[in-house]
Amino acid sequence: MTAPIPDLPILAEDDSMLSRRFGREVANYFSGSPLNRVSWLRTDHAFLSAAFAHPKASFLLLDNLSPLAKDLTTLAYVGKNDVLPLTGPEPFKRSEEDVIKQFNSNITQPLILFLGIDEKKNGFEYRGYKGNPYFAVDVTPKGSVEEKAKGVVEAAKAKGGQSFIPGTRLMTLNAPEAAIYAQARALLDWNARNPFCGGCGQRTMSINAGTKRVCPSTDLADAPEGGEPKKRADCPTRHGISNLCFPRTDPTVIMAIVSADGTKLLLGRGKRYPPLWYSTLAGFLEPGESIEEAVRRESWEESGVTVGRVVIHSSQPWPYPANLMIGAIGQATPDGETINLGNDPELEDAKWYPFGEVREALDLKVSFGDEAPKGAKEGGLRLPPQTAIANRLINAVLAGYLGAAPKI
Amino acid sequence: MTAPIPDLPILAEDDSMLSRRFGREVANYFSGSPLNRVSWLRTDHAFLSAAFAHPKASFLLLDNLSPLAKDLTTLAYVGKNDVLPLTGPEPFKRSEEDVIKQFNSNITQPLILFLGIDEKKNGFEYRGYKGNPYFAVDVTPKGSVEEKAKGVVEAAKAKGGQSFIPGTRLMTLNAPEAAIYAQARALLDWNARNPFCGGCGQRTMSINAGTKRVCPSTDLADAPEGGEPKKRADCPTRHGISNLCFPRTDPTVIMAIVSADGTKLLLGRGKRYPPLWYSTLAGFLEPGESIEEAVRRESWEESGVTVGRVVIHSSQPWPYPANLMIGAIGQATPDGETINLGNDPELEDAKWYPFGEVREALDLKVSFGDEAPKGAKEGGLRLPPQTAIANRLINAVLAGYLGAAPKI
Repeated sequence: MTAPIPDLPILAEDDSMLSRRFGREVANYFSGSPLNRVSWLRTDHAFLSAAFAHPKASFLLLDNLSPLAKDLTTLAYVGKNDVLPLTGPEPFKRSEEDVIKQFNSNITQPLILFLGIDEKKNGFEYRGYKGNPYFAVDVTPKGSVEEKAKGVVEAAKAKGGQSFIPGTRLMTLNAPEAAIYAQARALLDWNARNPFCGGCGQRTMSINAGTKRVCPSTDLADAPEGGEPKKRADCPTRHGISNLCFPRTDPTVIMAIVSADGTKLLLGRGKRYPPLWYSTLAGFLEPGESIEEAVRRESWEESGVTVGRVVIHSSQPWPYPANLMIGAIGQATPDGETINLGNDPELEDAKWYPFGEVREALDLKVSFGDEAPKGAKEGGLRLPPQTAIANRLINAVLAGYLGAAPKI
Repeated sequence: MTAPIPDLPILAEDDSMLSRRFGREVANYFSGSPLNRVSWLRTDHAFLSAAFAHPKASFLLLDNLSPLAKDLTTLAYVGKNDVLPLTGPEPFKRSEEDVIKQFNSNITQPLILFLGIDEKKNGFEYRGYKGNPYFAVDVTPKGSVEEKAKGVVEAAKAKGGQSFIPGTRLMTLNAPEAAIYAQARALLDWNARNPFCGGCGQRTMSINAGTKRVCPSTDLADAPEGGEPKKRADCPTRHGISNLCFPRTDPTVIMAIVSADGTKLLLGRGKRYPPLWYSTLAGFLEPGESIEEAVRRESWEESGVTVGRVVIHSSQPWPYPANLMIGAIGQATPDGETINLGNDPELEDAKWYPFGEVREALDLKVSFGDEAPKGAKEGGLRLPPQTAIANRLINAVLAGYLGAAPKI
């Protein structure tokens, strides 16, 4: 069986001066969300309450990051009444200030993430902002809400026509819903991984409709009924400016490196790739490093190749678990093309491939690890599908990104 | 008094096809480090030991993130003997595995960050990698090493010709050393902010020469002399793949938005800017969002302007505290230029400025908040200096980034 390869997000027509000079923008898989996040409204509990209560509100359920879906290509949503047993009827009734004061580390707070409004769908309106609201709810059975969450999960399964599909490396959803899933997955995962404060080790709580965590100064756990909450130990995140409680997104560089003469592409294979598969090199950006420097460092560390000019091409949100793939195209220096795998021994192999051979592989259009279609060259190169930014970078190079006839 | 504005990093000459098509790469302040990080050697304690012990090794001291420096423009380094009272003679003697086994939460581990080797300076060599080693040492007096750290700080001060200069918003260092400082500051700060594990709340320890933290499974604290360490509670970061223990870098978009007709620039002013100062809009990228989408979302949220095509221009490491500034140039859609500050009320003002007025402001070359030179237009626009990527983006637009004569 081969996995379906979804279409890519579609951008609006654009005839700007920038497009005329640099070509149309490339939209990568997992970008292109149809939702307006209206991010500043996440602190407005009147807005959140109205959105939650609206009959047109849609709720995406994730159980251990696996989303409820109709099939591998399409998400399924439930209504407010389906999540009420877990969330209660008015989860956004109180102001954020009050919610923090009521923090009780013995109680598991169900995570309700506000995703945004779909302005193409009519019904909900708040202070002139129109569009139906979308939420994601973490229904993973755990802590003090284990039984309630199980109930919501079982009820969703019992409905038929929908099930929780594996969320480990989900790459088959249609593009707009892939972007919705990426947002939901990244944020629910970050919340789940960070129940404690890195600054003081005490439990944190989710606020801002799932997009921030704070380290409260008091705790109602073990306080007598109706009594005063206990003061917690001091925490550095409560003083001055701190990023500790914001979600993390790890910038990652991924680069199509072209030979100095512009005829070959540098490709590498990781140790666990299926046979024949290669891809562009990639690696994490480090603190105190520009994207361009990270591209040059990682290229040299992994392959020994020295890269000169780097142009940043496009980007891709990557929710496995929390990366931003920053796609670049770089060119090797004329005397820096010798491959050496002996620096950081991360790759099993790296090679220069002539454009023609790369084009053949790109035209096969297969998913990672799948069998190539009949008629494909035996033992020929295999490359990632178009859902991976690597594919889009390679495609851009073959489509003349370097400027086949240099423009100066 | 006005603060000196440093020169920008200088890139090697480059006549690649990419440069001919897209122009020379723009190198921003805080990038352009002279050091090769040889990042894979950070787990090699034999390498680290040899580098630490080498007479040509340089140590940058940071006290509460303030670096030891000769003056506001130049860092000062000390030798191994100056840090020994804090670090001990052989801090990298044991393998990382052994160090983790010896974890004792009662003992403050002095943080020694390996920065890289300067290949332009001869002396040190390890397995064919040549260049003098650079380290940064956190000498902030704290925990069980408070007195020892104080001793190192006082000895450095007593030497004369050097002092710890404020590291809050240091922007005056020469470009190569600004990059070294950015790397050191970002990593020491991250270590200092994350003594506890976000996954389980227990203390973590620094490994990989300061670039990673782990949550050890045992603790020697309160164990009898020579006795077995205590087993700690289980932690999710010890299972499977996790990014919790890697340094965080927060991707931030910053964008010069050009009007649809390519004659005006959108600039905004924050509520705490000095009078007359404006800059490009900026904001944090969110999980599940591409760079291009973040540029469009933040532009609309802060100014009401709808942006079409976005081109990523260059990037800047920003160590206050841990950002990656991703510079983009975007163009407003023809019917999306109306300014509206009523969405996210973050800016005090936003305006369209004709290129001519912007050019005048750019030519003033003043530091943020400083007085403009004599002869500057009274009440005229003020813009950030060239050390800020905002300045470089604006400069690129004025220098014809849009392609004054469109190339198609």
